[in-house]
Amino acid sequence: MSVRVAVIGAGVMGADHARILAKDVPAAQLQVICDASEARAIDLGETLGAKHVLTDPMAALSRDDVDAVLIASPDDTHAALSIAALQAGKHVLCEKPLAPTYADCLRVIEAEIRLGERRVHVGFMRRFDPAYTAMKTALNDGLIGRPLMMHNFHRNVSAPDWFTGQMAISNSAPHEFDIGRFMLCSDYVSITVAQSASGRTIAPVFMTLETADGQLVNIEVNNNAAYGYDVRGELVGEAGSIDLGAPKHATYNVSLQSAQRFDEDWRPRFSDAYRLQNRAWIDGIANGTPDPRLATAWDGLCSTLVAEAGVIALEAGSKQAIKTPAKPALYEQKRQEFPREEPAE
Amino acid sequence: MSVRVAVIGAGVMGADHARILAKDVPAAQLQVICDASEARAIDLGETLGAKHVLTDPMAALSRDDVDAVLIASPDDTHAALSIAALQAGKHVLCEKPLAPTYADCLRVIEAEIRLGERRVHVGFMRRFDPAYTAMKTALNDGLIGRPLMMHNFHRNVSAPDWFTGQMAISNSAPHEFDIGRFMLCSDYVSITVAQSASGRTIAPVFMTLETADGQLVNIEVNNNAAYGYDVRGELVGEAGSIDLGAPKHATYNVSLQSAQRFDEDWRPRFSDAYRLQNRAWIDGIANGTPDPRLATAWDGLCSTLVAEAGVIALEAGSKQAIKTPAKPALYEQKRQEFPREEPAE
Amino acid sequence: MSVRVAVIGAGVMGADHARILAKDVPAAQLQVICDASEARAIDLGETLGAKHVLTDPMAALSRDDVDAVLIASPDDTHAALSIAALQAGKHVLCEKPLAPTYADCLRVIEAEIRLGERRVHVGFMRRFDPAYTAMKTALNDGLIGRPLMMHNFHRNVSAPDWFTGQMAISNSAPHEFDIGRFMLCSDYVSITVAQSASGRTIAPVFMTLETADGQLVNIEVNNNAAYGYDVRGELVGEAGSIDLGAPKHATYNVSLQSAQRFDEDWRPRFSDAYRLQNRAWIDGIANGTPDPRLATAWDGLCSTLVAEAGVIALEAGSKQAIKTPAKPALYEQKRQEFPREEPAE
Amino acid sequence: MSVRVAVIGAGVMGADHARILAKDVPAAQLQVICDASEARAIDLGETLGAKHVLTDPMAALSRDDVDAVLIASPDDTHAALSIAALQAGKHVLCEKPLAPTYADCLRVIEAEIRLGERRVHVGFMRRFDPAYTAMKTALNDGLIGRPLMMHNFHRNVSAPDWFTGQMAISNSAPHEFDIGRFMLCSDYVSITVAQSASGRTIAPVFMTLETADGQLVNIEVNNNAAYGYDVRGELVGEAGSIDLGAPKHATYNVSLQSAQRFDEDWRPRFSDAYRLQNRAWIDGIANGTPDPRLATAWDGLCSTLVAEAGVIALEAGSKQAIKTPAKPALYEQKRQEFPREEPAE
Repeated sequence: MSVRVAVIGAGVMGADHARILAKDVPAAQLQVICDASEARAIDLGETLGAKHVLTDPMAALSRDDVDAVLIASPDDTHAALSIAALQAGKHVLCEKPLAPTYADCLRVIEAEIRLGERRVHVGFMRRFDPAYTAMKTALNDGLIGRPLMMHNFHRNVSAPDWFTGQMAISNSAPHEFDIGRFMLCSDYVSITVAQSASGRTIAPVFMTLETADGQLVNIEVNNNAAYGYDVRGELVGEAGSIDLGAPKHATYNVSLQSAQRFDEDWRPRFSDAYRLQNRAWIDGIANGTPDPRLATAWDGLCSTLVAEAGVIALEAGSKQAIKTPAKPALYEQKRQEFPREEPAE
Repeated sequence: MSVRVAVIGAGVMGADHARILAKDVPAAQLQVICDASEARAIDLGETLGAKHVLTDPMAALSRDDVDAVLIASPDDTHAALSIAALQAGKHVLCEKPLAPTYADCLRVIEAEIRLGERRVHVGFMRRFDPAYTAMKTALNDGLIGRPLMMHNFHRNVSAPDWFTGQMAISNSAPHEFDIGRFMLCSDYVSITVAQSASGRTIAPVFMTLETADGQLVNIEVNNNAAYGYDVRGELVGEAGSIDLGAPKHATYNVSLQSAQRFDEDWRPRFSDAYRLQNRAWIDGIANGTPDPRLATAWDGLCSTLVAEAGVIALEAGSKQAIKTPAKPALYEQKRQEFPREEPAE
Repeated sequence: MSVRVAVIGAGVMGADHARILAKDVPAAQLQVICDASEARAIDLGETLGAKHVLTDPMAALSRDDVDAVLIASPDDTHAALSIAALQAGKHVLCEKPLAPTYADCLRVIEAEIRLGERRVHVGFMRRFDPAYTAMKTALNDGLIGRPLMMHNFHRNVSAPDWFTGQMAISNSAPHEFDIGRFMLCSDYVSITVAQSASGRTIAPVFMTLETADGQLVNIEVNNNAAYGYDVRGELVGEAGSIDLGAPKHATYNVSLQSAQRFDEDWRPRFSDAYRLQNRAWIDGIANGTPDPRLATAWDGLCSTLVAEAGVIALEAGSKQAIKTPAKPALYEQKRQEFPREEPAE
Repeated sequence: MSVRVAVIGAGVMGADHARILAKDVPAAQLQVICDASEARAIDLGETLGAKHVLTDPMAALSRDDVDAVLIASPDDTHAALSIAALQAGKHVLCEKPLAPTYADCLRVIEAEIRLGERRVHVGFMRRFDPAYTAMKTALNDGLIGRPLMMHNFHRNVSAPDWFTGQMAISNSAPHEFDIGRFMLCSDYVSITVAQSASGRTIAPVFMTLETADGQLVNIEVNNNAAYGYDVRGELVGEAGSIDLGAPKHATYNVSLQSAQRFDEDWRPRFSDAYRLQNRAWIDGIANGTPDPRLATAWDGLCSTLVAEAGVIALEAGSKQAIKTPAKPALYEQKRQEFPREEPAE
């Protein structure tokens, strides 16, 4: 049976999600495209053959012919739409962040606890990336012993003018906050932030986080790296380390150089991750068994909590403690074992 | 509208194709699974939710509720089933080879010419592999100038006992015969084959082919390479060269080694290629416009022609001429421009 | 004319230095081997054909038939021997550190200022490593624009039992302190240190330093990395980045892995660096023109100054300011332009 | 005691050899520089501090104050000078080829047999390259089992106008002929040559050789590869393969590319090989024990023999047998075990 999905937001992210659901996930039925811009909604809806096109998200998510809602609208609408979708009895995949503030994240958590069921997932798609999957699998296999440290590098070609060092922390780094926590299975207890000085660019930000298990997680966010979209990662354990790959399809030997190409943005690099995440979400709804890799609302809250501490740490120039509240029972459900997957599927 | 597919053959290849159609290609409807073993057909059909399960391929391919037939039965049945499917008005994707003999390939060509329409495609899926796509795109962009040479290495972990040097040529090398011809857009005019001596293993076979445009195509087939499944390729032009990548998702640093892993067989390496090929095939049927990258029956015939010459060249120990007949008008249709694709999609 | 050298210390480092002088530097004459252990001195002296063998370093460095002294004795003797050699009118290449304490470093500086000539160099040989040379050359060529950040990873297979986190800072990291300062041409103004928790190993230490020009220098020292000797580095600028290579001579494809080997310790990795440094030192003495890449006594002092601050920062758990004193005029001499070298020479 | 060397020929190769002897080999004494051009001889002699400068090679090699002769004069003088040096009782390192014709090689062999001592070595320096050394060591260690095949790629940026396909075989490929034979310890029994067609460039030549042990050795020589100087090699055995490395000192991330640089010619790539070869040659003379890796005159003859057969095979367009004569007793001396060396030394 198909899962009928309403996609809220037809911008870059929403269009990508809708295309994946239509073209790569046979179990999904693209039921509604909803965007504040009717023209944009119609355009995308026609391209992908969506059944309905709407401009009112509340109307979209409460329809009887909709089973699940994919939220890709502006960040500050995420919490309210998630809560409304929950109240309408729908499943939710919300683009990150769950909400820009801890307070709003908490409201979603409270709504879910009232419902008594985990129906909201957050789009931390790196959990499904074949490279991070290979890293996690090797860690679980004991290849490198106990993990001690994780290094993360997040580089974009260029940031918009209005981007700031704070946004590097609140907007870019959450992917790393989440994947570090997912990989190490430990919450963060502190964050320290340094920023390099740069006259004419948004300067790189460098963070050092400590986990409750005494591990270090280092994160560089360099939104103006200029040379390419480049995400790197390394997990260091007592017996060895695992370097994240970034699949390259060819090497070009010309002009006294042997070169591999960088992507210009995140989409080619993480296309498998989005595809596999969205399929896992839909299949979990169809099966009644959510994929244990999907980020929960609680994971979303934890990520925003760290981002808020990071912004303060940048301003203060000193280490900032992170106090994660006790995890509600709803989120304590034992995770199923991490599935072993073949790299490309 | 969905394209209703009958999959003939539920062995390794057929099961993979059926799974891809069911799980990755929303425009396909898995209508029939057909296998001589009823148990195997039922097992696969239930797993994937096929509508019908049959044991008679002729019955399967002639059904009114079937639009297209994917042939993954034993090699010597390919031609007869392709011809029957053509006569029943169906579209065909036939696993390679189109037929093990040139004579049988010709019968399919004749049937298609009678029909007056190209409805048979051959599963040379490497044409859809993101790495070969990157190579072809760079060539078309003029990056390396006029192509002069292509090197190919085809290595399997181990071959079954009954495998021979002849089978390395007739069974393994056709993928390289096709991709070299696809890349260089020139037919082969000669083949020379050497085989290394080895007491206890099927020894590697090394082929040198010349094209009508004076290019060299070298192919190593090493079916007992032992160390891993490893396909390499390099295209050398007047201004540079392009090395085929084999995406690696992680590097493991342990025990004084920095290691990347090989696959054990072709499936992980070419999972994207099969997925993209099968989707292109289905979408082309749905749209009425076949994807120009799909190998035609003529491409299948050319590959078998070369294999036959190669087997003779191995026995003779000398260069063997390859005389490709004039291409029938049906296959002269101008190819559409090669589409520029993003690496991972 | 040959430069006659006395090597003080015939341990691992001293023996390597003596061997390089004897076997790789035609302009050097191995005049004296001196070690507290007479047996060890005789053994090395005979192997390499040294003219004299002594046990008293003061006697060795004051001989008339000695032009230059290579100090590879225990760290806490470096300053006193350097000063004595200066007073005897000799040239000095002192293994790092110049001295374990800032106060002792200062005494060497004062002795050199009294002499009015820079005759002491410190063995920060990475400045001569072909990989760091390639990095520096590309930076100087403007390839990556203004440098913003440098990442350093210093990993050993295992540390002796008596090794501590403080020693990771005072003993291992000075190589990185120096190369970061050499690369960025800016002094450090602060250091922050974190250490991962580990029950059974010396845990990795992670440092973040800020330079006077607002750049960040990150250093991981992992003395129990287990998997191999591995030094990595990356220099990140406004227009791109440069990753340090670690030359690998072969890739081994066996057992489903494609592997490159790590060295077990620093000697194979930096053998070129030691050879090129020692030759540059000797040639500079012979020519009367010291190679501008050689670390001066002032560079040695700066490195020890940072290490002292780092040890305090580790204990305090907070950022520690580094106050580099004004550079004495003797060390203000304009550096010659950095020479462009071919990678392997 | 120093070995006093006369270098015959002060062109590119002779100057490099003289520089290595003067700057990198303490046991060598650069006694004579000899070149037909007196100006060139004086220029090089003064730069390197040679004791004497001459224009007559026969005078140079017969001097009493000369122990050894390094021959880097034009190819067609090699045999006569080697024989004269032998008759004068000198040791010889002759740049490849020993002679351009088999007949002339034989004359050197005969002179050596008359002398009853192996005093001539040929400059097949790849035997000392750390990458080939790593390959040979791994083979000897049994890592890949019995060797079955060796692939070789020899690419130059561009060839002079007067270069021909024949010269690709007679001038460039001898390095591969020798290293393949050195690696596999088996003589060649046949050679087949193909050449790609190219309107405006010297087209690449591709050779397939069979050894007496049934192994295949493939060699591409591409003298106009355009993109860089690039030598690749792979040794394939029953249990795995070894890929030759080409040490890279840095990776440059700029302009949407991650690039490593090619050398423009062979000198940076093989600088270690020349240095280690020349040192081994001098040390062998000083010790009275030649390094077993040095190519003998017999090795030189075998390489020329193959080149002559290759030129015929190119013209004939068919496989050409290679009949190596019985090895004279002088060259049957048991080779010492191949020394295990550290990569960079």
